[in-house]
This record gives sequence, C-alpha cells and structure tokens, in this order.
Amino acid sequence: MKQKLDQPSVEGASSDTALYPGRFQPFHLGHLAAVKHVLSESSEIIMMIGSASQSHTLENPFTAGERASMIKLALDEAGVDPHRYFVIPVTDLQVHSIWVSHVCSFVPRFDVVYSNEPLTRRLFIEAGFTVKPIPFFKRKMCSATEIRKRMLRDSSWEELLPESVARYIREIQGVERLRDLTKTDKVEADM
Amino acid sequence: MKQKLDQPSVEGASSDTALYPGRFQPFHLGHLAAVKHVLSESSEIIMMIGSASQSHTLENPFTAGERASMIKLALDEAGVDPHRYFVIPVTDLQVHSIWVSHVCSFVPRFDVVYSNEPLTRRLFIEAGFTVKPIPFFKRKMCSATEIRKRMLRDSSWEELLPESVARYIREIQGVERLRDLTKTDKVEADM
Amino acid sequence: MKQKLDQPSVEGASSDTALYPGRFQPFHLGHLAAVKHVLSESSEIIMMIGSASQSHTLENPFTAGERASMIKLALDEAGVDPHRYFVIPVTDLQVHSIWVSHVCSFVPRFDVVYSNEPLTRRLFIEAGFTVKPIPFFKRKMCSATEIRKRMLRDSSWEELLPESVARYIREIQGVERLRDLTKTDKVEADM
Amino acid sequence: MKQKLDQPSVEGASSDTALYPGRFQPFHLGHLAAVKHVLSESSEIIMMIGSASQSHTLENPFTAGERASMIKLALDEAGVDPHRYFVIPVTDLQVHSIWVSHVCSFVPRFDVVYSNEPLTRRLFIEAGFTVKPIPFFKRKMCSATEIRKRMLRDSSWEELLPESVARYIREIQGVERLRDLTKTDKVEADM
Amino acid sequence: MKQKLDQPSVEGASSDTALYPGRFQPFHLGHLAAVKHVLSESSEIIMMIGSASQSHTLENPFTAGERASMIKLALDEAGVDPHRYFVIPVTDLQVHSIWVSHVCSFVPRFDVVYSNEPLTRRLFIEAGFTVKPIPFFKRKMCSATEIRKRMLRDSSWEELLPESVARYIREIQGVERLRDLTKTDKVEADM
Amino acid sequence: MKQKLDQPSVEGASSDTALYPGRFQPFHLGHLAAVKHVLSESSEIIMMIGSASQSHTLENPFTAGERASMIKLALDEAGVDPHRYFVIPVTDLQVHSIWVSHVCSFVPRFDVVYSNEPLTRRLFIEAGFTVKPIPFFKRKMCSATEIRKRMLRDSSWEELLPESVARYIREIQGVERLRDLTKTDKVEADM
Repeated sequence: MKQKLDQPSVEGASSDTALYPGRFQPFHLGHLAAVKHVLSESSEIIMMIGSASQSHTLENPFTAGERASMIKLALDEAGVDPHRYFVIPVTDLQVHSIWVSHVCSFVPRFDVVYSNEPLTRRLFIEAGFTVKPIPFFKRKMCSATEIRKRMLRDSSWEELLPESVARYIREIQGVERLRDLTKTDKVEADM
Repeated sequence: MKQKLDQPSVEGASSDTALYPGRFQPFHLGHLAAVKHVLSESSEIIMMIGSASQSHTLENPFTAGERASMIKLALDEAGVDPHRYFVIPVTDLQVHSIWVSHVCSFVPRFDVVYSNEPLTRRLFIEAGFTVKPIPFFKRKMCSATEIRKRMLRDSSWEELLPESVARYIREIQGVERLRDLTKTDKVEADM
Repeated sequence: MKQKLDQPSVEGASSDTALYPGRFQPFHLGHLAAVKHVLSESSEIIMMIGSASQSHTLENPFTAGERASMIKLALDEAGVDPHRYFVIPVTDLQVHSIWVSHVCSFVPRFDVVYSNEPLTRRLFIEAGFTVKPIPFFKRKMCSATEIRKRMLRDSSWEELLPESVARYIREIQGVERLRDLTKTDKVEADM
Repeated sequence: MKQKLDQPSVEGASSDTALYPGRFQPFHLGHLAAVKHVLSESSEIIMMIGSASQSHTLENPFTAGERASMIKLALDEAGVDPHRYFVIPVTDLQVHSIWVSHVCSFVPRFDVVYSNEPLTRRLFIEAGFTVKPIPFFKRKMCSATEIRKRMLRDSSWEELLPESVARYIREIQGVERLRDLTKTDKVEADM
Repeated sequence: MKQKLDQPSVEGASSDTALYPGRFQPFHLGHLAAVKHVLSESSEIIMMIGSASQSHTLENPFTAGERASMIKLALDEAGVDPHRYFVIPVTDLQVHSIWVSHVCSFVPRFDVVYSNEPLTRRLFIEAGFTVKPIPFFKRKMCSATEIRKRMLRDSSWEELLPESVARYIREIQGVERLRDLTKTDKVEADM
Repeated sequence: MKQKLDQPSVEGASSDTALYPGRFQPFHLGHLAAVKHVLSESSEIIMMIGSASQSHTLENPFTAGERASMIKLALDEAGVDPHRYFVIPVTDLQVHSIWVSHVCSFVPRFDVVYSNEPLTRRLFIEAGFTVKPIPFFKRKMCSATEIRKRMLRDSSWEELLPESVARYIREIQGVERLRDLTKTDKVEADM
C-alpha cells in the first residue's frame, strides 16, 4: 500500500484528519461552507492549495501565497480554531499517475479526502483512500468561475466572498490584475 | 528591490539600455520599425527572443537560432549599428510570478522595457520597471499571425518582411515547414 | 550526422530494424495491421509508446505500462514472434527541436521510421532518416479517437480491438475510467 | 522593486511578519528557540520548509508533510499561539537567480527574513529585504547534522528534540529509515 | 492502496510477474545470473532500465537504447524465451517519495520486486510490495563499477560480460567513449 | 543528418561560422585570445554561454546576463568588429544525448566547433561536426578556476582579465558575492 510510505499510522494520534484540495481562486463563501462542513465531521482539516505555482492567468489569477493569506483571513473572520487546520500549497505535476503520491509527500497524514471533482475523486479512490462529497452551497453563484466573471465586470463579486477576502483582493488590486490578464489573451499572437 | 540583484547599477555605464521582448515568429517590418523607434530613444537595445525553446509549431515555427539569424540579417540590411544591440533567447517558464527574475538573469542590465503586451507590461511594472508602449506600424498587416496565415497560402507574405528575412525563410524552407505543421493538427488524435 | 552518435552502425547486425511510434490509446486492429505490414518489410520492429508519462486524460486514458501490456497481449494473440519486436515507452519533451535525439537515446538502433503523422515524418526526415507511410486499415473505424468515443457510449468498441486487449480493458475498468475523465472536464473550473 | 509584485503592502495589515526558512530535518530545540526569538520581535512567523520535494536521503530523510507535522507538534507542545504562524513547504529550484521570487509567490507577504545561512542572506539582501541573524542555541549539539549522526547510532538524539517530535520520529520509524539510507550510499554503484 | 491504481489485478492473468530494476551499465554476467534466478521463481520478468535518460557520464556511459540492445543480445545468446521478459527504460525523478508510483505507471503489472539495493527495497516495501533479494554471482568481479574500471584500462573486462555484449560495446566504441568521459572530469572547471 | 534540421545550408551565406562554447566564469584573457584565434580562421563566431541558468555558486558565480555584458565589454575593448560575433546563452539539460540538438536549436547555423573540452568534443564529433582545438594562452594562470581562487583572496586576479571586465566585476561586487558563496558551503548542513 502506497499510503503506508508517506502516511504512516501514528499511534495515539487523532485518527480523523481530512484533506480538502482546491485551487481557491479566490477563496469564497462556498469554500468556507465546505470547511465548516468538513470540520463538523473531522477534527482537523488540511486545505491543500492546488496549482500552487500558477498565478497571473485568467483561471489562476492569485499566487499560492496570496491564496494562503485569503484562507487565513477568512477562517479568522469565521472564528475557526487555528489548531484545527493546515494550509499547504502543492505544485501541479501534469502527470496524473503520480499525483496522489506527490500530494501525500507534501501534507501531513490524513484519513479521508473531501472532493466533488471527478478526477481527484477517482485518483484518490484508486489509491485506496476514502473520499467523501462536499454538499454544495449556493453552487451557481459560489463558483470561482462565476466570481472571476463578476470581477471582470467589477460588479457584485464581493457578496460571494468573506468580507476580509474581498477587502484583501481590493488591497492587492486583484480586479485590476484580472482585467489586464483578459486583455492579454486577445493579443498574445501579436507579441 | 529585486532589480538590484541581477541588475546592478554599473557606475559610468550608459544609463539607457532598453529591453524589447518578442517572439519574432518571424521578424517582420513592424518589428524593425519598433527597433528603430526604441533606438531613437535609447542608446542600446536588448532584443529578447521569447519562447526560445519552442519551434515546429503553428504559433512558433522557427527555432531561437533561426530567429536570431533573421534579426541579424534584418538589422544588417537596415544598417543598424551592431554595437547598439544584443539578441538573447530566453526560454519560457510557464510560471508568471518568477518570469521577470528569470529574464533579468539572462540579459544584461536594462533601464526600460518596451512592450504592448498587457501581461508583459503588468509583470514588469509590478516589478518596479519603467515600461513604454511601442507605436504600431501598419498593425493589421504587420502581425506575425497575419504573416503566418499568408505563408500557409504562400501569397504576398514576403512584402511584410525585410527582404533578407524573406530570402532566409525561403532558403530554410520555412513555408513548407509551416504547412506540414498545419496538417499535423488535423490528424494528431489518430497518431 | 546526429544519427551517428546514438545509432552507431553495428557491423554484422541486421540492417533492417524499423521504428513505429504511436500513442496506442488503446492498441487497436489498425495498429496490429500496421505491425504486420512493417514486419513484412523489416526483420525487427521497435514499437515506441509516445506520451509515455501521460495517463488518466481523455486523450491519453492509459498508462505506458498498461499500453505495453496491451501490445504484448495483442502480439501474442496474433502469433507475432517475440524475437522480432521491442516495446519502449518514451516520455514527451514538448520541445520539437530535440525530440528525434531524445527518441534515439531511448530505443535500440533503427534503419527506417514508419509513420503517417506529418510532424513526426517531418522531424525524422529533416534528421536524415528514411520515413515510410503505413497503409491505412479501415481508417474511419480503426482510429483511437473513434474507439474512445465508442467506449464513452460503451457500444461496439470491442470489435475494433484484438480480443485480448478488449478483455484487458474490461478487467482494468478502462471504460469506467474514461467516463470519469469526461465528467472532470465539465467541472474543472469549479474545483 | 520585485517585492511589490508578490508582496503588496496591504493597508491596515500587521506590518511585522517574519520569514524563517529552514529544512527542519528534523525540527529540533535549536529551531524552537529560533521561533521563540523571532516571535519576540515579530507578530507573525512564516516557517518555510525548504527542499520540500526532497526526502529519503541522508541529508533530507523526511518528507515535507512529515516536517510540517513535526513543526505543528513542537509548537503545540511549546504553547505557541497558532494564529501567529504559517508552515509552508517550498520546492527547490536549483536556479539561484529566481529563488527569491519563487519563495515570494508561495508565502504570504513578509517584512523581514531571519537566517544565518550566507547564500540565503545574500539573495534576500540583494533583493531588497531586511535580513536578521538568529542567535544560536547550543549550536554544537542542536544542529540537524549532529542529530542525524546520533540517530544513525540511535543514541541520545531524542534529548535534542521536542518530546513530541522525538515520539513522532519513533512512530514513523525514522531511525530505521535513516539507517537504510546509509546502507544505500555504499552499494549504489552496483545497483 | 496505491498499487490498485496502476497495478490492477487482472483476472486469469499469470500471477507471478517480477520486477528487476537495474542500471545495467553495462549488462554483465552477474545480471544474467540474476535474470536466470528470477525466472526460476517467476514466469515473467520486467527488466527496468533505471536512470534511463542518463548517458555519456562515467557512472552511466551508455544510453537506455544501447542498454536495451545489450540486454536483448545477452538474453538471446543465453537462450531465454522472449515471451518471458519485458525491457522497459524508466527515467529518474530525483524525488524519492513518488518514485514507486512513477515506476508503476511505466511498467506492466508485477507481483514481486527483486533487488539488493537498500533504498529500492525500502521504497517498495513501504509501498506494500513483496521484495526479494538476489543471490550474488561472483560479486567482487561482476560489478558494473569493476567492469567500468577495467574498461578504462581496457584489460580483461570482456570476460565479465556475455560475449555478445562485449562485442556490441566494441562495435559502438564504448571503451573509447568511457575514456573520453574520464578526461572530461579533469578539466571541467576550465571549460 | 540531424544537422540538416536546425542548421540548413543557406545558399550564398558565408560558409565559415564557428561555435565557441564556454562558461566564461568570468571571461578572461585566455578566452579573448581564443576568440582572436577563431576569428583568424572563421569570418564569424558564436560565443555560446553554457550553464546559462546557473549563478551564485562557487563554480558559476555570474548570471548569463552578467557574462554577456563581460563579453561585450571585452570585445569592444579589444576592438573586435561586432558584425562578426553572436553571444547566445544556452541552459544546461543534464541529458548528454540530446545536448547537441539543444544547442543547435538556440544558435544560428555554424560550420565548425572550437573546443578543448573532451565531452564537448566527443558529443559534437559523434554528431558529425568538425571540431578544432584552441591553442592555450598562458593556460596555468588563465583558467577561470585559478581566477576564482585569486578572487577569493582578492589578489592579482585583475591582471588575468581584460581591464573592462575587471572593472565590471568590481562594480557588481563580484568578489564579495564569491566570498559569500564560499561561506555557504561550510554551514549548509545546519540550515
């Protein structure tokens, strides 16, 4: 069992740590609801920031560091006990067959994975992990895609984020960055 | 300041070296007009050949070495003083957050960047560099995209290039290469 | 000649080894017909499994190891003499200009390349190799793209594969994997 | 200023976050003393786990995830407020000129770096950051090198670690792993 | 269990395939004895050529393709049934924690690993595989290190190799290559 | 012939371009003598800056951009006609079997290689290129290794460099950088 290598069973340790992988571009109210749900079932949550080396693209506007800051602001605002979570950025590998091992080597030991993403689910299930779904919270609006669209129009995106995250994005001029990235796609071929 | 590391201020050195990043696929009359414009404002220009390891694709048909040859042929034909320019190929990193540092480590010290590409502009501005626009020269026709399209039809593409570059592309059978690359896209899935 | 480096002419060795590059996602009756054709003209064939590190995507559902297993099952079923073939997985490089050298360092010496793929043909021809076409066998049906489409509907895909390969795909639950991968593409942005 | 890009000054945010880079192989009492020292001068500390993708070597026996677990155990044992620290693994790049930008994109904004390592110090200073030294705590004994040596003899290494870390290493059979890695070096050439 | 993903249990398939990883620089009589030993216990052997992208160094003089050729020559000379073995080159990853998954994705399903190399043994055992030792055959002489030393003196190295392999190395001028590589190390810094 | 791909024979072009690969850490009087020698035999020289992405190490203290600056300063000081040379940085690949193709894709077409480095010579010769030796100029002193040693003592290193290069190194505080790098090696394990 691959899991044995990187995920040794530590005697006496709490047996219910959950892994919650996401890209969090940006961290929104749906993510926050997911964290609360996971923490109602597990004593600890590892928030894995995926695509960690990607930033400054339309799909991934924010750096891993910025996303880690957003998560901490949001969880502090929501009063989540900081003893109960880890925030760990993990780079992409582009090679699906080794992705689970890669993740396991970057994060502390976990017992269960929470994900609705079919490929993530499949890879972890095939590797012998328990994978649970996440109940959707206002799914239509609370999607990072919808939020990035609204940010491009700069209209009503803030209501879908924790206040502290919306403020942070304003401060780092995230809306302006996203718009510049849109322009880029149009003229790339002329560069 | 990141710039201090790779871009030490050299006492007594000319203070107006310009960086001009491009892919130059191929180098055309619009690029030549840009070089002349930059050299009217700066004493030296560094022509950075981007996406340097890419070649033999529809968007990037020519190798970095071939593009360096084109640039030298064009600037010699135009009578540009070779003391006044550098030609430096730089590979892509796919990681935007470290791209400016990457570029800085491959090229000599520069004082200003010339670019119309929004992402390039944004990344350099955020890194503290002065970025200036380039006046467009017959923009519609003088785009590498338009030229590659004309090359696929092999019709009137040569009038958009310096004579020496058009001749060079004929000699290395660039039109034939580009056509083979088009065919490729159609059957790739059957490979 | 680049070829001299990695492909030394070995005195006394058979002079007609053929390279047959493909992705084999999955290995089907068209591939089998190609192998038979090549072996009617050459004494040995090297079946190069391209995109070897890719798996668990819609275009590349199977790992290199799974594809190697399929090829061996199919050639055993067809009674091909195992002295006459090699199966060698080769990772992609994304850099076309060095791809031929990369391939040459991973496979035994060869004398001729069989391929219908225009870019593959062009790169090997420009590197000085003899490249021959492969007669198509029921092209419309026997394409990996068509087979993957039928697998998604789970309808009549097995008739396009050697029996042993169809059985193997069933056993490793390949159809189920492909369907999960389809779902993935739809929700990726929400991850 | 490169720093501006990834490290935007956020209005109203605490202005004294410290970056403390280390490999923590394993996390020992010297590291703990350093954390306490930094937290006596800064309100927040980012513990950057360097060489994050390295593990199972003599110099880097533990995975990034295992090291993150050790750090959390040690800081909990020492009663450090979890609101005050981040633990972020960062992979190596092997390219010194872009390392500072790479780090900046993975961690939240920081104001000062604590390090005694000359190359780390030089790279951050040249990038415009304030870098402070760390007072040594029983330097001779409290070095990861000394601890790994003692672990190989399995003698008196535990006294140099927080109790919870020593227990964790026992539980994941870290001493046994380190010994196997020593054997490896002797016969590698015969593999 | 990671193994489940890439190593699905195929119903009805022979249950005793062995993985034998090595660098085979070059393939010698000790390796041949090992293959015979493994085939006395298993019905099939996968010979995994490690460090596959390395060549033209003192430790790794031969390309993966050359090593694949040597193995085939040797096994043909020894009369080993080609139905019973696979030869698969696998590139290094430098990241130990994901190496077992990486190997599993490149080779067909296997049931047991044969290795004397402590790190290889440890990584496979921790991943849940059965690992067996290989009886040594004239260990002192039959080591690739010893053979490469003798090749540098060009004295009595051929007696440690299968005849067909020794002949092949002569034909590709392997001794000459190795000597040039020795010279290289001496003057590298002056390059 | 691999050469045909990246190195098309251009009709009417001068047929004697020379490639001169080096690391130039730093560019010294021996390198300058080599350039003059090559230009006495060829009409054009391509100075390929090897290990281009390496910097801030004891063996490779300077970035590719700094080395390009040194070369231009030195050749201007020596009055070499800028029409006659190219300066092209090329990153390392660590994979010897594809290195020649990699180089060919980054530099303009060349007819002959000048090198005394045995591995460089061997790889280019095996790829079918003409390789010529470089007469040594005060070899003992004029080696980059000797110069870096003297720089560490800051004694009489400037006499081995072109004046403009020595001045440039002073200005970018190269001696100070090299010393910091020495310190690093001593304490690395304690980091």
